[in-house]
Amino acid sequence: MTKNTATLLISCPDRKGLVAGIADFLYRHNANILHADQHQDSELGLFLMRVEWDLHDFALTPEQFAQLFAPIAEKFEMQWRLALSTHRPRVAIFVSRYDHCLVDLLYRHQAGELHCDIPLIIGNHDDTRWIADSYGIPFQHIPVHKDSKEEAEKTQLALLRHHHVDLIVLARYMQVLSADFIRHYPSRIINIHHSFLPAFLGAKPYHRAFERGVKLIGATSHYVTEMLDDGPIIEQDVARISHRDAIDDLIQKGRDLEKIVLSRGVRWHIENRILLYANKTVVFD
Amino acid sequence: MTKNTATLLISCPDRKGLVAGIADFLYRHNANILHADQHQDSELGLFLMRVEWDLHDFALTPEQFAQLFAPIAEKFEMQWRLALSTHRPRVAIFVSRYDHCLVDLLYRHQAGELHCDIPLIIGNHDDTRWIADSYGIPFQHIPVHKDSKEEAEKTQLALLRHHHVDLIVLARYMQVLSADFIRHYPSRIINIHHSFLPAFLGAKPYHRAFERGVKLIGATSHYVTEMLDDGPIIEQDVARISHRDAIDDLIQKGRDLEKIVLSRGVRWHIENRILLYANKTVVFD
Amino acid sequence: MTKNTATLLISCPDRKGLVAGIADFLYRHNANILHADQHQDSELGLFLMRVEWDLHDFALTPEQFAQLFAPIAEKFEMQWRLALSTHRPRVAIFVSRYDHCLVDLLYRHQAGELHCDIPLIIGNHDDTRWIADSYGIPFQHIPVHKDSKEEAEKTQLALLRHHHVDLIVLARYMQVLSADFIRHYPSRIINIHHSFLPAFLGAKPYHRAFERGVKLIGATSHYVTEMLDDGPIIEQDVARISHRDAIDDLIQKGRDLEKIVLSRGVRWHIENRILLYANKTVVFD
Amino acid sequence: MTKNTATLLISCPDRKGLVAGIADFLYRHNANILHADQHQDSELGLFLMRVEWDLHDFALTPEQFAQLFAPIAEKFEMQWRLALSTHRPRVAIFVSRYDHCLVDLLYRHQAGELHCDIPLIIGNHDDTRWIADSYGIPFQHIPVHKDSKEEAEKTQLALLRHHHVDLIVLARYMQVLSADFIRHYPSRIINIHHSFLPAFLGAKPYHRAFERGVKLIGATSHYVTEMLDDGPIIEQDVARISHRDAIDDLIQKGRDLEKIVLSRGVRWHIENRILLYANKTVVFD
Repeated sequence: MTKNTATLLISCPDRKGLVAGIADFLYRHNANILHADQHQDSELGLFLMRVEWDLHDFALTPEQFAQLFAPIAEKFEMQWRLALSTHRPRVAIFVSRYDHCLVDLLYRHQAGELHCDIPLIIGNHDDTRWIADSYGIPFQHIPVHKDSKEEAEKTQLALLRHHHVDLIVLARYMQVLSADFIRHYPSRIINIHHSFLPAFLGAKPYHRAFERGVKLIGATSHYVTEMLDDGPIIEQDVARISHRDAIDDLIQKGRDLEKIVLSRGVRWHIENRILLYANKTVVFD
Repeated sequence: MTKNTATLLISCPDRKGLVAGIADFLYRHNANILHADQHQDSELGLFLMRVEWDLHDFALTPEQFAQLFAPIAEKFEMQWRLALSTHRPRVAIFVSRYDHCLVDLLYRHQAGELHCDIPLIIGNHDDTRWIADSYGIPFQHIPVHKDSKEEAEKTQLALLRHHHVDLIVLARYMQVLSADFIRHYPSRIINIHHSFLPAFLGAKPYHRAFERGVKLIGATSHYVTEMLDDGPIIEQDVARISHRDAIDDLIQKGRDLEKIVLSRGVRWHIENRILLYANKTVVFD
Repeated sequence: MTKNTATLLISCPDRKGLVAGIADFLYRHNANILHADQHQDSELGLFLMRVEWDLHDFALTPEQFAQLFAPIAEKFEMQWRLALSTHRPRVAIFVSRYDHCLVDLLYRHQAGELHCDIPLIIGNHDDTRWIADSYGIPFQHIPVHKDSKEEAEKTQLALLRHHHVDLIVLARYMQVLSADFIRHYPSRIINIHHSFLPAFLGAKPYHRAFERGVKLIGATSHYVTEMLDDGPIIEQDVARISHRDAIDDLIQKGRDLEKIVLSRGVRWHIENRILLYANKTVVFD
Repeated sequence: MTKNTATLLISCPDRKGLVAGIADFLYRHNANILHADQHQDSELGLFLMRVEWDLHDFALTPEQFAQLFAPIAEKFEMQWRLALSTHRPRVAIFVSRYDHCLVDLLYRHQAGELHCDIPLIIGNHDDTRWIADSYGIPFQHIPVHKDSKEEAEKTQLALLRHHHVDLIVLARYMQVLSADFIRHYPSRIINIHHSFLPAFLGAKPYHRAFERGVKLIGATSHYVTEMLDDGPIIEQDVARISHRDAIDDLIQKGRDLEKIVLSRGVRWHIENRILLYANKTVVFD
């Protein structure tokens, strides 16, 4: 049974009466609240909220909601967004040769863990086409070379527009996107970095972790910004290693981390659980 | 700077308008909400809430609150409790010979991690008196033998009453409390069991974990009920072991688990983060 | 590059001179030891060892090894086994409807994480055939009903013999194997149980974990013995849950645990890292 | 019962016959090996070994061992060290105002977890003297100011020499030691850094972790070298945080990490489990 709910995400200056105002509005229009969570950042004087309600008895269409909620939003200087569970976001996956994150995402999608549509996989190599095929998802091979990068990004952007893509997932995509490309999808590109950021940002993090002799390796999913590996962190996890682990073992153990950390980030984004502020994320559970 | 807040804990049948009703009440009396968290158990149709607000501008005394909130509470059939951060709960610690949890709790108390008073430590052995002394806390040695248990519990209860104790912490107290004793402090006795419950309930869990060949050992803090090791679980954690660990290593590794898991349970209770229902806990973070 | 090594697994009564005897034997026949690990169980007076060496310069064939090592083995009353890395064990996977462990194992196999051949997948339902197909592995649908179980097991055993299967992996296979079946593959059937054993053995562990209100859920891979869920534990892991997790969330979080815990167990078995004694495992890392 | 064992630590170029040579030597002198572990770094062609045996029937005194083992050591170009369990290393603890690691170490020492003597605690503040007093350990207050640092280190070194100190533990000692000081105790100073190195090296790591929005905080115990926070890592661990955690919560959660990670590092050093190479540690378990 598909659920039929609305999720409201709000961020605004913290003030008395906010919760009462919102709760009262929802109650008056007959919302049955399923989850509500909020966070105050006392230092920044910021109020952040996520509230989800059943649409069964709810009196308003999204358009009516927008109209009637506007005065409250204005009064409290809110940034807000309403998301319906019936709207499945459209996700494009970018991939290179490493296929573990791609396989993991497609399996989770097919198993019903990710409530989204995946209209498009873009690979700068052709190696993972067979995986896309086995899940029946269109695969586009767009090679990227030093000289052709601008051209390639144009092709990619055209495809993304054509497929009305809402979110781009870099599933171990081994190319750095241009600032121009990123500006088209602000806070809508999720990357997996194979280290515990901010340690080992940039290239070959497992090799550098091995050299430094750390006792845990990590993975980080984050939104992509123009600064490499510096965007808001969504999720991180670590695994224990020992002197018995060679670089190949780190890479193998890391794959399991990468899969889990990326898929959590994607799921939380899709479920509208993430709010951004001050280059950080609030993840409402 | 000590904070001056009120925390309201509510559990009642789930209904529309609950959040609006509560938020509106607090707003009208000028509460500045610092944290609010809620949980719906859809299967049981239950609504649980914890809300904490700054008392600085709040218009009501606790007595006025009780009076004015009563109609709302009645309308929604609420069980509710108001706790003030200025009220420090009074905690008694029961201990036998193992002293690691006692030392840990006293250090955390002194370091300001546990906002409570500790007017009393009761030991059925005298071994840990020196620790109580070094932290300047009264220690009562009440031996417990097969024949003297009833008598001993009477003495304990008298002391607890005398010291107006709100919460009893069994810090590896190696005696089983009688059902009669427990009835005096329902949901107000916290025990640490040195296993991952419900595995290895009862005696000698590390020995049985060793025999069974498990790969992780655990610890569980829980409220004490008349059924041994069956009360509502507050917190659990585990540590990895290997074939290299003998029973003594399990016991040593377990000590670190026990300290952390018990102290978390006690802290959450003191901070009014725990709601009980259906022999389970909701821990609001 | 495939490695070309031999692994010797030994268990025997602990005695002086054991390591010297074995190391000297290997040295005299020009073995280049890559890894050596040992364990003494002082309580049982048991010595357990795993030693792996490069076969490049090694002077003996397996047959010669058996002949020349026999006197040492006899002197020290050893149980021993020699495994060559060039021998890929033959693994059959049993599956029902849940497909996550199957998909995970097949992906890891294809990615080179599991050095084995998988000649056969047996399903008591036909649902996962498409997955077997996409990896090009033969799938046999053998329905199991109350009355047909004995017959079904006969068919299964015939297939296993036909394919020279060394190890059976129960990848969430929802049928209990008969004692007679198990006797054909002693210590060669690995199961994944979706709880932290010995907690919640038997049916519906996630439901019972939810009811008991535990704060962590677990998974356990173990060898199958005639006693249900009582065989030697190979690996366990846990994941944190909260009151926000409904049973469906437990099941979803549990899937990730099950995949990792089962695949580790299978890999360690294949890599000859596991020694069994006293209903426990030693896993040499 | 105190155990009476010898531990031999070896590092040398990897060669055939090493294990056989060592095992044979020990066997001929009637050693009963309790544990033996080894590691080959194939890239560097390095062999590392730790072997521990019961001295009960052992035929050699340490002096005889040194004499008779010399030819083998020379042949294989070994660096080696023999440690007797009856020799309790002498440990000095340096501390500033934060007392949690000090309290933790002293408790573990008194509980028998750390097989060492602690003849001396040096504080650059006097705040923790009462803790030293309650455990009956001499406390020296040596203030350190910008101008007096050289003088202070001279006083410290004199005290360390006087007390024949083998190991210095910096238990949240908030002063940077001079290169000259460090040269007196190469690989014999253990520090706890309150971050997951190499992330957030230097000052105020919790504040920077908070700012960066990481989802896990960490702690690292490491040997002190002249490069700040760059010495060989002994142990690391992490704890999960969320947006609900303010900096004070990070600091509080971090304390538990720091205690555990530092005490593990100290224990492993004392138990002669650590070998150093290439600015890394091998920790034999």
